[in-house]
Amino acid sequence: MKCGVDLETREVEELYINIDPIQAGGRLTADAMKAIIAYGDGYSVCDNCRKPFRLDYIKTPPVDVFHRDLAAFVHMDIARVVAGARRGFQAVTGTYVQKGDPVLLSALSHYTEFLAIESQGGIPLEIPKNKDNLITEDAAADKIESVLRKYGRAPPLLFIDHFDYQYGNEHQVKQVIQVAHQYDIPVLYNGAYTVGILPVDGKDLRADFVVGSGHKSMAAPAPSGVLATTQERAKEVFRTTRARGDVTERTFGVKEVEMMGCTLMGVTLIGMMASFPHVKERVLHWEQELNNARRVVDALLAIEGTRIVSEYPRRHTLTRVDTTGSFDRVAQKHKKRGFFYSSALREHGIAGLIPGATKVWKYNTYGLTRAQTEYLAHTFVDIARDNGLLVNGEW
Amino acid sequence: MKCGVDLETREVEELYINIDPIQAGGRLTADAMKAIIAYGDGYSVCDNCRKPFRLDYIKTPPVDVFHRDLAAFVHMDIARVVAGARRGFQAVTGTYVQKGDPVLLSALSHYTEFLAIESQGGIPLEIPKNKDNLITEDAAADKIESVLRKYGRAPPLLFIDHFDYQYGNEHQVKQVIQVAHQYDIPVLYNGAYTVGILPVDGKDLRADFVVGSGHKSMAAPAPSGVLATTQERAKEVFRTTRARGDVTERTFGVKEVEMMGCTLMGVTLIGMMASFPHVKERVLHWEQELNNARRVVDALLAIEGTRIVSEYPRRHTLTRVDTTGSFDRVAQKHKKRGFFYSSALREHGIAGLIPGATKVWKYNTYGLTRAQTEYLAHTFVDIARDNGLLVNGEW
Repeated sequence: MKCGVDLETREVEELYINIDPIQAGGRLTADAMKAIIAYGDGYSVCDNCRKPFRLDYIKTPPVDVFHRDLAAFVHMDIARVVAGARRGFQAVTGTYVQKGDPVLLSALSHYTEFLAIESQGGIPLEIPKNKDNLITEDAAADKIESVLRKYGRAPPLLFIDHFDYQYGNEHQVKQVIQVAHQYDIPVLYNGAYTVGILPVDGKDLRADFVVGSGHKSMAAPAPSGVLATTQERAKEVFRTTRARGDVTERTFGVKEVEMMGCTLMGVTLIGMMASFPHVKERVLHWEQELNNARRVVDALLAIEGTRIVSEYPRRHTLTRVDTTGSFDRVAQKHKKRGFFYSSALREHGIAGLIPGATKVWKYNTYGLTRAQTEYLAHTFVDIARDNGLLVNGEW
Repeated sequence: MKCGVDLETREVEELYINIDPIQAGGRLTADAMKAIIAYGDGYSVCDNCRKPFRLDYIKTPPVDVFHRDLAAFVHMDIARVVAGARRGFQAVTGTYVQKGDPVLLSALSHYTEFLAIESQGGIPLEIPKNKDNLITEDAAADKIESVLRKYGRAPPLLFIDHFDYQYGNEHQVKQVIQVAHQYDIPVLYNGAYTVGILPVDGKDLRADFVVGSGHKSMAAPAPSGVLATTQERAKEVFRTTRARGDVTERTFGVKEVEMMGCTLMGVTLIGMMASFPHVKERVLHWEQELNNARRVVDALLAIEGTRIVSEYPRRHTLTRVDTTGSFDRVAQKHKKRGFFYSSALREHGIAGLIPGATKVWKYNTYGLTRAQTEYLAHTFVDIARDNGLLVNGEW
């Protein structure tokens, strides 16, 4: 079925259970689907943009209220919508990082944090992970000390991912922030895998910046996201323009430099807004999501030769698994080689695995119903059995 | 009608003829409407993202082909999609502008160009407009010379808007580029009001960068846009990351620093793609659009006391008009004051004028049918007559 000239309709969410590691939290809610149809056109939220002409002042639709609600949702003072978490990172590095500055992130940081630092000429330096693939406060303290020795000054910024994208492991965010603050280093909390799927309390964590991703975890269209901060830091990161036309003497009012004025003027913002009541509700059911995730992990662990590479028991629905000793052994002899596995999953109605992957791979069960969870767990086991792998326990 | 909790459905395009100056070129095509429904979810275009994991390499949907087509469409070598024209500006200033650098733009430049320069610590300097509100090659040459005298060096970049946002006037783009090149200054052609609504030939203009806006002029959802450049400049503005994890020794392959990796991963990109065949077609009918625009201008000029502030005859569908001597005179005595005018337009089914505006205002007839154009022209005249203003000619 076409949805445009030479454009096939996307049906993966309609036809399959999708366990793609990055897509799970960004599936639209039914309300968001309706809203994007109504607000599809370019500058659709700007019908009633009035003085001082800035996105977060718009009252109809209630963009202004949404901005305040968004700040409250992550328990910070002030929030702005941004074109993806990465643009939130960039706004913060644009404010604090000068050329040659050492900036801390972690051995499990997302590449967009590196790029945000690199774009300012900063030097990204990693806090090492420990043998369990966790970022600890001790490692953060050691790294800060080593930076002080080498650069003679503290880093102007530290990034910490609450859950990383590689393992979905939970890191010592609160403690790392505490350590950083002892050196007066502001901290950016990367909530790309938390904001919108589990409760986040920026004040409790004492984060200086909370960044979330709309398309990754807030059931919103791409690119969208949130950058929230404290009153104090807002003056810096959301500073308004001081530019002035040397000929015309024009000035540009309340436009914020790092936001480049307005950010999301249509469908992306309305999608975030329409999903928001549901997102606020769904974060309260994180425990149920974890139960689902653990059920699937149990199934995988029952397949002899399979290892969960992420921390265990799981604290997130994104999980990294090593099937070198199970499904990859099958692949060695299978006529479809590595493709047997993704293709068997497809035949069972499961999508989201990279075709050919049989060694180390990731999946995400976020948002599946209990019934879908059971089906997924049993599908892994069934494919294992069908291919002669030993399954332990009552499966 | 609601399209979400506390969210009213937007119906302005269904119920009215919308002459909002910035919304006209960003109305979705029917194909884009269908495509955004199919691709509403967060990372919807990433189902088949494979090595080397970058947006413009995705084959299904044909994002790769679209990128090449987009470059060809503006007759440049290489194109990337960006989250609005402003993010295209920022990528270019991020590449070429250092702190303290003088950067040229014009007395009619959009504020986002100022912000893009300010975000890099550059100094925006305006090429003056002449008495007809046009930017000429002579003014550009004079300004460059004055920068050379004051700063001892040429600006690293010059912005020129083909048509400006204030008057919709056409400026001497080709000639200004030629002058800039005599000083080896690269030029960014701002096509926010051209790319997607009239033919743009970057090679013929000898532009170094062509920037367009998806939500302003390419019938696409916000935020979206295009940054296109030459082979030579692409190496600079689309340079790939050199970041390397000091602990993990990770590198990040083909990710482009100024793009922050990928830019539009879902509905915004698919909207651009679905509209693109229609956009390619519609730029060929620019003359008809101008005829429509001129018809409306004729009607306004027939109303005694009304002035067209934009250049005349019109070369663009965006027009600035001064009705201080006509509708504003009515407003002085009307019980609704200035609101009589926007409210009369609304009653006649016309939307897009800022409520209360009766002195100097802008409108855009882009995309109206001939019948809608006639209706709009006659509505202006009718409202004038209804309020006792003199109308000249055969209206």
